[in-house]
Amino acid sequence: MEYFPAPLETLVEQFARLPGIGGKTAQRLAFFVLGLPAEDVNAFASALVDAKKNITLCPVCQNFTAGGLCPICASEKRDASTICVVADPRDVAAMERSREYQGRYHVLHGVISPLNRVGPEDLAIRPLLERVQAGGVAEVIMATNPDTEGEATAMYLARLLRPLGVKVTRLAYGIPVGGHLEFADEATLLRALEGRREL
Amino acid sequence: MEYFPAPLETLVEQFARLPGIGGKTAQRLAFFVLGLPAEDVNAFASALVDAKKNITLCPVCQNFTAGGLCPICASEKRDASTICVVADPRDVAAMERSREYQGRYHVLHGVISPLNRVGPEDLAIRPLLERVQAGGVAEVIMATNPDTEGEATAMYLARLLRPLGVKVTRLAYGIPVGGHLEFADEATLLRALEGRREL
Repeated sequence: MEYFPAPLETLVEQFARLPGIGGKTAQRLAFFVLGLPAEDVNAFASALVDAKKNITLCPVCQNFTAGGLCPICASEKRDASTICVVADPRDVAAMERSREYQGRYHVLHGVISPLNRVGPEDLAIRPLLERVQAGGVAEVIMATNPDTEGEATAMYLARLLRPLGVKVTRLAYGIPVGGHLEFADEATLLRALEGRREL
Repeated sequence: MEYFPAPLETLVEQFARLPGIGGKTAQRLAFFVLGLPAEDVNAFASALVDAKKNITLCPVCQNFTAGGLCPICASEKRDASTICVVADPRDVAAMERSREYQGRYHVLHGVISPLNRVGPEDLAIRPLLERVQAGGVAEVIMATNPDTEGEATAMYLARLLRPLGVKVTRLAYGIPVGGHLEFADEATLLRALEGRREL
């Protein structure tokens, strides 16, 4: 790749380091950036530096926040007696989009995954236990992904949390709304059948 | 999307402006950046600003360069009597990878495309004519893409260049090396047959 001048080559390499961005895409993005007005490029660069500098973890729920408590932990309107445990800050955004959940969150920043050498000590589990031990929590909802690692993590946490006297629940499994029965896998159908409700 | 703190939201928006990057991917990239060490984020931001600031167009061939003549136009070893005309700086990189071409280049920065409101006056055509008029050029090779717009652009340029007394050629069409006959379209097969050579 000695065909591009060094500053362009460096930019291509920087883009190629991003997850899911291959060499060709990195080139395309770098060329796009060269075609932008200088102020737009500066705004992009500032957004990178600002986000890294100003985004911290909420000391209570470990979600991303722009300093201090996150808006959800700071809100008086949110029910502090319910904690929804998710693996990732993006899952908080997904739950919030449902506009139904009124409790608070706890972000683990990962799931237990021996294959990827992620153990319980790598996750934000201690702050969760401390929140529950501090009292005032009635229910902890496990909302990790319904895959093997998400399941294992939910099970592990449930075992730690139950002795502390809180109710531990799990999001329901079933057929996704708008989904087709014929495309549902057997495990999902089995869970949907087990979890059936009277109409 | 009011669920992320503002600096993170801004970063997601910046990523989402890039071509081919949708909302979900933009989120993934922004979160990846937050997980990088601060020095890596600063290096990324600097690469953006540096590339935009330091990359200019070669005054001769219009390819990207880090100031002054591009390395190919500056090289005494490259044959100045042959000019390969391409639509995009990436095409120069592709040609150079073949390690066969020893002439120089001319980058049009686009192709004539009435649908996208790109006319001849939007391309670097005048500098090409000036190079040929200045003398010393024996052959101009049209290496625009073999699609409708690339063809039309090559035809248009050929009509302008022939009166100047240079040989105007076009890259050969045919079956790609390593390709399968059964997957070749009819137009390509026809061209491959027309261009057949004695073994």
